Amino acid sequence: MYVIMVYDVNVKRVNKVLKISRKYLNWTIRSVLEGFLTKESYESLKRELLKVIDEKEDSVYFYLIDTDRQPHKIVLGEVRTDFKFIG
Amino acid sequence: MYVIMVYDVNVKRVNKVLKISRKYLNWTIRSVLEGFLTKESYESLKRELLKVIDEKEDSVYFYLIDTDRQPHKIVLGEVRTDFKFIG
Repeated sequence: MYVIMVYDVNVKRVNKVLKISRKYLNWTIRSVLEGFLTKESYESLKRELLKVIDEKEDSVYFYLIDTDRQPHKIVLGEVRTDFKFIG
Repeated sequence: MYVIMVYDVNVKRVNKVLKISRKYLNWTIRSVLEGFLTKESYESLKRELLKVIDEKEDSVYFYLIDTDRQPHKIVLGEVRTDFKFIG
């Protein structure tokens, strides 16, 4: 399945969340990562994230798209290639 | 089709981009909006955005998902309900 992940976490935890997430997904823009994941690796990513986020303050959204083809992605303006830690 | 939009624009233009986008899509979290759009309304949204963004500096990403069902969305932690202008 194709997964799009968006995080909104306390700046203290951004590095940890990003480090974990980038083991599984590709950084795209701002606080968004994406990529193909098996169910098992998606569950593993969730478990790792749940160990570092504060569920009362942080948010991580997953869009799970049941497809074996990458969703069509259109970019207006600049393609973000520079990876910078996004708070 | 289901559309997930992510913007990364100069803070001077966030309000305009958000105002336009919220006519078509629902704000979800951070700089992400989503919802069902027809091809025509998607094209209309793009035209409006292209009038206000600076294509050399700003980025707007669209994920176009060819489905009539909302992608499965999982939230870890807090569901973002408070809408605040996200720079």
